[in-house]
Order: sequence, then structure tokens, then C-alpha cells
Amino acid sequence: MIQRPFAGIHTPIATPFQHDGTVDEVALRRNVARWMQTPLTGLVILGSNGEAPQLDDSEADRVVAVAREGVPRGRAFIVGTGRESTRATIQAGKRAAEAGADAVLVRTPAFFKSQMTADVLDRHYREVADASPVPVLLYNVTMFTGVTLPVESVARLAEHPNIVGMKESGSDIGYIADCVARTPEAFTMLAGSATTFFHALCAGADGGVLALASLFPGELVRMREWVAAGELAPARELQNRLTPIARSIGGTYGVAGLKAALDLAGYVGGAPRPPLRPAPPAVVDIIRTQLAALGAESLLSSTASSRP
Amino acid sequence: MIQRPFAGIHTPIATPFQHDGTVDEVALRRNVARWMQTPLTGLVILGSNGEAPQLDDSEADRVVAVAREGVPRGRAFIVGTGRESTRATIQAGKRAAEAGADAVLVRTPAFFKSQMTADVLDRHYREVADASPVPVLLYNVTMFTGVTLPVESVARLAEHPNIVGMKESGSDIGYIADCVARTPEAFTMLAGSATTFFHALCAGADGGVLALASLFPGELVRMREWVAAGELAPARELQNRLTPIARSIGGTYGVAGLKAALDLAGYVGGAPRPPLRPAPPAVVDIIRTQLAALGAESLLSSTASSRP
Amino acid sequence: MIQRPFAGIHTPIATPFQHDGTVDEVALRRNVARWMQTPLTGLVILGSNGEAPQLDDSEADRVVAVAREGVPRGRAFIVGTGRESTRATIQAGKRAAEAGADAVLVRTPAFFKSQMTADVLDRHYREVADASPVPVLLYNVTMFTGVTLPVESVARLAEHPNIVGMKESGSDIGYIADCVARTPEAFTMLAGSATTFFHALCAGADGGVLALASLFPGELVRMREWVAAGELAPARELQNRLTPIARSIGGTYGVAGLKAALDLAGYVGGAPRPPLRPAPPAVVDIIRTQLAALGAESLLSSTASSRP
Amino acid sequence: MIQRPFAGIHTPIATPFQHDGTVDEVALRRNVARWMQTPLTGLVILGSNGEAPQLDDSEADRVVAVAREGVPRGRAFIVGTGRESTRATIQAGKRAAEAGADAVLVRTPAFFKSQMTADVLDRHYREVADASPVPVLLYNVTMFTGVTLPVESVARLAEHPNIVGMKESGSDIGYIADCVARTPEAFTMLAGSATTFFHALCAGADGGVLALASLFPGELVRMREWVAAGELAPARELQNRLTPIARSIGGTYGVAGLKAALDLAGYVGGAPRPPLRPAPPAVVDIIRTQLAALGAESLLSSTASSRP
Repeated sequence: MIQRPFAGIHTPIATPFQHDGTVDEVALRRNVARWMQTPLTGLVILGSNGEAPQLDDSEADRVVAVAREGVPRGRAFIVGTGRESTRATIQAGKRAAEAGADAVLVRTPAFFKSQMTADVLDRHYREVADASPVPVLLYNVTMFTGVTLPVESVARLAEHPNIVGMKESGSDIGYIADCVARTPEAFTMLAGSATTFFHALCAGADGGVLALASLFPGELVRMREWVAAGELAPARELQNRLTPIARSIGGTYGVAGLKAALDLAGYVGGAPRPPLRPAPPAVVDIIRTQLAALGAESLLSSTASSRP
Repeated sequence: MIQRPFAGIHTPIATPFQHDGTVDEVALRRNVARWMQTPLTGLVILGSNGEAPQLDDSEADRVVAVAREGVPRGRAFIVGTGRESTRATIQAGKRAAEAGADAVLVRTPAFFKSQMTADVLDRHYREVADASPVPVLLYNVTMFTGVTLPVESVARLAEHPNIVGMKESGSDIGYIADCVARTPEAFTMLAGSATTFFHALCAGADGGVLALASLFPGELVRMREWVAAGELAPARELQNRLTPIARSIGGTYGVAGLKAALDLAGYVGGAPRPPLRPAPPAVVDIIRTQLAALGAESLLSSTASSRP
Repeated sequence: MIQRPFAGIHTPIATPFQHDGTVDEVALRRNVARWMQTPLTGLVILGSNGEAPQLDDSEADRVVAVAREGVPRGRAFIVGTGRESTRATIQAGKRAAEAGADAVLVRTPAFFKSQMTADVLDRHYREVADASPVPVLLYNVTMFTGVTLPVESVARLAEHPNIVGMKESGSDIGYIADCVARTPEAFTMLAGSATTFFHALCAGADGGVLALASLFPGELVRMREWVAAGELAPARELQNRLTPIARSIGGTYGVAGLKAALDLAGYVGGAPRPPLRPAPPAVVDIIRTQLAALGAESLLSSTASSRP
Repeated sequence: MIQRPFAGIHTPIATPFQHDGTVDEVALRRNVARWMQTPLTGLVILGSNGEAPQLDDSEADRVVAVAREGVPRGRAFIVGTGRESTRATIQAGKRAAEAGADAVLVRTPAFFKSQMTADVLDRHYREVADASPVPVLLYNVTMFTGVTLPVESVARLAEHPNIVGMKESGSDIGYIADCVARTPEAFTMLAGSATTFFHALCAGADGGVLALASLFPGELVRMREWVAAGELAPARELQNRLTPIARSIGGTYGVAGLKAALDLAGYVGGAPRPPLRPAPPAVVDIIRTQLAALGAESLLSSTASSRP
């Protein structure tokens, strides 16, 4: 079986802030160190869950630098660099590569939605990939952008030597299957929706970039192995158990839900940057109950196994 | 493993018309006879692909009677009976039962979409199920109705002793998985979208009611067996091969596409009832090419195996 | 100024039912008689608010016959006859004409939404208009059908000698303006949304078919006169006062809301046919408050002025 | 009649670029000088049509500075300052005020759409308005943001002493009417859609911020006067004549359409910044034809009257 680049379980890390609203570098360092004790394949810095759209460029560069120090070469270190203009995306990619990114994850431009035709997106990604010092992962996240990269475009772009894979954040399994079927054998497909991760794996995804993996990396690694072995029943059962918390973090309660869960699991989550608001107590209670329902063992096995 | 009622591969049969626009009973009989030589689990009469909304009650009754004569007791004989009012739905169900239906397939009311709340749908289905002489299958087909049966409603209705399963026609695999997870062990989940049938099976569906099964029953039976055995690779590969024709019939080209494919495969398809129009020659060519790409052997093995 | 056919203020009348669920002809007669004492231009029988999709053909014919007896020749008597098939629509139109309809109001077919292309809709309406003994009004009601008649189709169909106007039920004022601009001088445009009736009048509509006109015919007649005279301020102010009740009846609370309001205003509303449910007490209270806010005088002046 | 702040006809100016992709300050200066010879009420700098999402902060500041020099105090000078985070929006607003903005136009945050609840938007705008040295105009542009400011929020925010008005870019006339009806007498409502500008004026809008006003300021001023005088017929007729070109610029062909029209009308448009592409020749031809259909006189009277 072919080993595809960046196949595996990654997590898009949250960006912790101090009470004055500035980035909390100490907390960021601590979180990264702990994730490095789990079976995670790699980290994605400056993804949506990292509140990238809320950071200015100097803050973003600093987050990359701090995280990079905590991630050994054996793990994937991927940086989100999508911007609205092609030139700004290229510049962000170069800065990320200089700071040590193994790959850049480039979301589609989002503002001028109706103008984001297949042709426009093709050219954008080609120019970005031509200029990028490191491999490019396409990133389709319709929920946030209102734009969908056409399957035809994915198929064409996957032929570019510097475009090695894709993250698809939606739950349209047919779309994921089409992308898998239409791209070369070596192209990596990563799923971004934890509520349908099992289904994406069955459809041929090579792994995921999942907020849920910040909390349950071991479980998600195991689910991937089960599907690869054709053991659908336990994998489906695990998906069903994880779905409620998967809905809460990143989905229903957004970044605030993820950060509340991180706090409950012993990481530093804290408040998101306004206008986003911290999860209210009632939501924290829901998330606490969902985590508890998954069992202490579960959390232990996956996120804290090597703590002293 | 539990044997669920109506699990397997069914096809919603088309209704052939004569040139004067009346139902072609001879052709209907011939088509049914040929389907009875395939491994199909059963037939659905008066589904969407049977142009049920275009038939008046006396025509509909006649289609049921003619088809019933051609289906032996060992095969499932399911009749679509959904109407806009609860009383008309109950009446149609009683007529279907008298005519020999093994079960009724009841689509959600569709006209007053915004009023079709969970509570309204719950009551409707309970009253229908209470009054039905034969088991009821729920039928969610958002593409045509603009209404979606909430998962909560499915979970509640699945407890009713006379509601034994559901057909979900959409491609939202997470919805199908949720319905499977939230209903009793003995409740049957049938998928209605052939473009995502493999994914529905992985998610736990017990089979399908698929227009594609009018043409490729053997292939779809095999896909189901493969998934049950955890052999994902050949099943996924088969899905990929079938997806283009699955899109054409019932989907992109609607009933007209299905009927054109039936004509090409040696059944009687013919023209749909106006305002629906027959597939234009260019579309027939596309469908012919798609069928050809799947190979003569394929068609032979699945739809014509017992012809002399 | 040209006098367009059916220009003015019409109301789509509700169909009252008895406790056993059958049509209440006595109540229907009484309601019609009272509407005939208001300045209404005409009535629409078997529209959406008349629960036409819930009636069988014999009930529908009976409702038309009973209402017809109560409407003098000087008022417009329009019957809804849209069905899913072209042939059933033509048959319903012939029955309506025989029963004395001045015109038929023909909604777009709705079930096979994605197949309702401009070409399909054009042919459907042409065949219906060719066969209709009385003038045809197009009826676009996307909220219920999920289908939108393209402006191009409206423009082409408006050239047909037997298609004299259109009812557009949506709130897209630009669409209404486009239809007005693209149709001949003598073509009548009637608005169906009372929440945006003032705006439709400014855009060039010749009147409306409004559930709200069952309760406030005088106000709506006056609004139309004000706009025709360029007196926007009082017309806009009246619209603002009517908007809350306009939202409740037909919109938020559907037919049940209209029927509750009729009961409160001294007409017979009663319960809609299941699966539709009567408005719960809390909703009735909201509607009562909205009616009261409009003042007793208002109701008096418009709906009960000629009662003894 | 009350004089509302910023009532009138404004245009969101395009940002011209040089061949190397940097801002063309000479062209910007020339365009502004020419607009100052028209009856425009004011200019909006860094709006969507100014490609604000494609500019970095230093470019944006420079555009503001250059434009400011060309606009005399008697005209409104409004700067777009919406950002994803509250803190960045406040900072951008302070920079704009220092650079001489008369008001800031603040679009809703857009990325985390599902988290943009009424409460989140209320707090965001309050904090922005509290901190802003100049009056704030709310800016709802669902087409680009996928977020809609609830009418309730508009009503509450309109009570803030430093929030003086709103630009609504959509074509939902009922929404505009609701905002007008629910805000204080002195609150200014500006429409952003030129295809429905006449309807917005009838609904009570005090003017517009319209790309079309870059080309037809005189016509739009006149339309506003006609509606104020209750002369609907000529205003509606003018709207109908302008609608095709209104669709092309900003709408169907986006910023590229606007820039092509500017080039044709003697301004400097040029290419938008990638990934946006210049209008292809076929589109330029369409726009040329649409401009020609409106007549040389028209263009002359409105955009070039004082040229030597």
C-alpha cells in the first residue's frame, strides 16, 4: 500500500489568549508539549479553530514560531496560510516555510463568493503552489467560506507536483468519495468533520484534521486502523459514541466549545477573541457531561497516557 | 445477526404509458416478469419514479393490481401511499393492503412545508400506522418534498409496532447513521440514493430502494454482501463505476433518464407523463455510453441472466 | 389608464370543515355571503389557503359549486386548478369552467422540482391555456412548490391570448418588478404576500390575492388607491401596521393562523385538515392581540360595515 | 422633514491597480477628482467594491489618505473598517478617523458565521461604536458574509448615540422596510443594491451606497427626488432602464464588471487583484452595449457634465 504524504490524524490547534487579549505563549507551549505525548500524526497551526482570521500577521508568525519549537521533526507541522488575495497567500506561505512549516494548508478565498469560479480557483491555487517552497494542501471549508472547490478543480489541481493533498471540512461523503476517485493514487485526502469521520474513512479518506483529535487522538487513530482492516462494526460504534462531543466542539459551539473542552481535559483553552464569546456555563456543563459519558479511561488512554 | 423486515435490494418500478397517455399494462406486466428473474428482494410500486404524483387514484389502483399478479409471495411487494392529508393517506393504505401490499411506503406530506413540524409529522405517521392493515415504512425524500423528518421523530416513530423501517432518499450519510443509531435493532433502514449507496451501507443501512436496481440488481446485491463482509475495496470500486449512471437515472435526468435507460436495457420505459418530457437524444446518448462503459457482461449478469 | 383583467383585491378563501372532517357547506356559504358585503374585487376558491392539496376532487367540486352560488356576476370568481400532471390540470380547469369560474389560477407543478425547467413549464402552461375555456392566471408560489417560474417564461407565456395575468406569492420585489416590466401592458400582476404588499404595489402590481384580505379588504383597497395616487407615506404606514398580522396568517402559523383569525373576526374558520393542526391557544392569543392592536374600528370599517 | 446624516447618493469607489499589482494612486486621484464634479453626496472608501479584503493595512491606509485629499469637506467621506475581530475593527476605525473619515462603515464579521448570533453582533457593534471617534454605519452584506444582522439587533443598535445609520446591500425589500420601521426617526437607511434601489426608496430608504452611482450619479439623485415627490412612474421607468447595467456591475460580473464599466466611461478601472480576474472581452461587450443602450446623453449628463 502506498504511503501518502500527511496521511494520519492531525489536530488544528487552538490559540490560547491571555486576559488582556494577547496570545498566551506559555499556554501554547504547554499544550503543544502535551500533544506531543499522544499518537497524533501532526499539528495544524493557524487553522479556523486556531482563530487565524482573528490574528494579525505578526501574531500569526509568533504562534507558528512558538509551536514549531515544540514539535519534533518526526511529526507533521502544517500551517494555514489562506488569504483573500493570491499575493497575500503566497507571502503568508513563504513566511510559514521560513518558519519551518512542512506544508501549507490553503483555504479557498471566501469574500467574493460568486466570483470564485472553477477557473479563478484553479489559477489561484496554481500560482500559490508554483510559488510555495513547501507542499500545498488544498482546503475546502464551505461552512465558513460559502465556496466549494469543484471536484473537477480538485482533479486538475491534484496533478500539480506541489499540491499533495486536501482537507475537506464538510460532511458530504459523496464529495469526498468523488475527490478520492478522481485524484492520483498518491494524493492525500483528509477529512475535517469529526461527526462523519468514520464515513469519510470508509469512502477512502487517508486521515483527518480534526478538532476532536485535540482530545481523543488515540480513539481516532484506532478508528482509522479498524476501517483499514475492514472492521466496520467497532469503528461505527466508536463514531456513534464520539458524535455528540464532535458536534459540540468546532460545530454547534464553535471555537468556544473546543476551548471549553480543552479546559476540562487539562489543556489551556480559555476565551476566544471577541466578537467570539466564551462558552456559557450551561454549554460547559453539556460538554462536561459528554466528556464524562466517554469515560475517564478513554481520556486517559488517549491524551494523558504518558504523563508522569 | 438479526433478520430485519424488508432488508435487501428493492427497485421502485417505473410506470410505462401508451402513446395515448394511458397506463401500458402489457408493458408493466412484461417488465415485472423480467425483474422477477433477477435477484431483487422486492419491488416498490407507486414511488416517485413510478410517477405516482401524476396518476389518479383509479390508475394507481390498477398499476398495483397488475404488478401484484406478477410478483410471487417470496418477494417483497411494497406500495407507495403517501398523500397530503392524513385521511387520504390512510385510505390509500387500506386500498393498497386490500390489493395485496406487503407494506406501505409513506412519504412525508409536502405542500405546507413550514408547518411540517416534528409534532405534526409524528401525529400523522402514528395515525397512519394505527390504521394501516400492513406494516408502514417511513419515507423521507427531501429532494421532492422540501421536508425533512427529524431524527428525533424517526427515533420516536420507530417504537411504533406497525412502523418497521424507513427509506431515506438523500445523500446525507450522517443523517442515515443517526437514524440507524437511534432506532431499535429490528428497524430497517433502506437507502434511496444510488450515488451514495456504498456509503449508506457502511453507515449501517440494511439495503436500498434504488432506481438503479431496475438495471443492476446483481451488482447492488453484491455490493451489499461485500460491505457486510468488510471488503470495502471492491465495494467502493463498484460504487465508483456505478456512480455516473446512478447520477443520470432518477437524479440529473429524473424519471425520463430512468425510462431511457430501461429502453436501452430491453425493458419498456417510454415517455414520462407531461409536463415531464422524454429524455432528448443527446441525453439518451450519454446514458447509452454510461451503460456501455459498464460492460455488456455486467448488464447480462444482473438483468438478463435467466433469459434463454 | 388601461383596465387590466382581475386587477384589484381578492382573497383566497379558507375551506371550513365540520367536526367529522367533512366540508362545512353552511359555514362556507355564510363566510362567502359576508365577504360579498365588503369591497373585495373577488374570491379565489381552492387556493393554498383553501387547503386544496388536502381535498379530493369531489370535495373540491362541491366547494366551487357552493361558493359560486354566493358570488354575484360583478365579482371575480377564480378557481385554483393546478395539478402535477398536465392532463389532470386541464381536466380540473374544464370542471371549474363548467362550474362557473371566471378564470383559473394554475400553480406550477411541484413534485419533480429539478425537472421543472423553463421549457417544461412553458409547454405545460401553453397546453393548459390552449385547452382552458376560461382565462388562465399563472401562479408562482415557491414557498410551497420549491419551483420558480423564470421571468423569461413569464414574459413568453404572457403573449398567449388566454394567459391574462399572474399571482406571485413571494416577497422578492425585484422579481415582481421584472415580471411587470417584461409583460404586455394588459397583463395583470397580482401579489400574494401581504407582508410586502405595499412594496409590490410600488413595483407595479395591479392588486393582490391575499389571505389578509379576508379580514382587511377595505384597508387593502385603500392602500392600493394611495399608491396609485403617489401617496406613499400613509400607504407605508398602513403596511407597517398590518405587517404583524400579515405574518401570522398564512405565513408563520399557516392556514391554522388564518382560520384562527377568521374565528376571532366573526367568520367560521375552525380546524384545518390533518396533518395540519389548529392554532394552539398561545398562538390564538398572539393573533387576538395583533387584531386588537389594529383597532375595533378598523375591523368594523373593513369587514362588517354593512352588517345590520 | 428631518435631515438624516449621510442621506443621499454615495458610491463605493473601486481601487485601481498598476500593472505590477500595486495601488495606482495617480488613477485614484483622477477618478476622485472627476466624481467631485458630479452631484454625488459622498464616497465610500474601502468597501467591497474597493477590494478592501484584498488590501493589506498599509495599502488601505494609503488609499484613504489619497482619496481624502480629493474630497472637499462638503461631501461625505466614509471609510470601510470592518474586520473579523472586534479589536482589529476598532483599530481600523481609529486609523480611519485620524485620516479624516466622516464616518466608518462596519460590515459584520463573516468567518465564523454560525457563531454570529444577535448577542455576539450586538456586543461587537457596541464596543466598536463606543470606541469610534466618528459615527458608525452598520453594514449588512449577506451576499459576501453569509451573515444577516437581525432586525431586532438593528433596532437595538440604532439607539446607540454613535450608530447613526446602516447600509443594507441585499434586495430583500421587506427587511429594509422593517429596519426603517423599527429604528428612530433620525436613523439613516442606505440601500446597497442598485437593481432594487427604486423599491428601497419606496420602502423608506434615505439613499444608497451604490456602485452604479460611480457611473450614473445624476440619474440616481433624480430617482430619489422623484420617489420623495410621489412620482413613481418615471422613477420606476428609470429603474427598469438601469437594471441591466446594475446587474452587471457589482452583481453578475462583480468588481471586474464595475472596473470594465469605469474604463468604458472614461474613468480608470483596470484589472482587479487576483484571484479576481478582469472581465473577458465578451463581458466587456455586454457592458458596452448596456451603457450604449442608456444613451450618450445619459452618461454625459451624469458623469461628465463639467469636462472641458
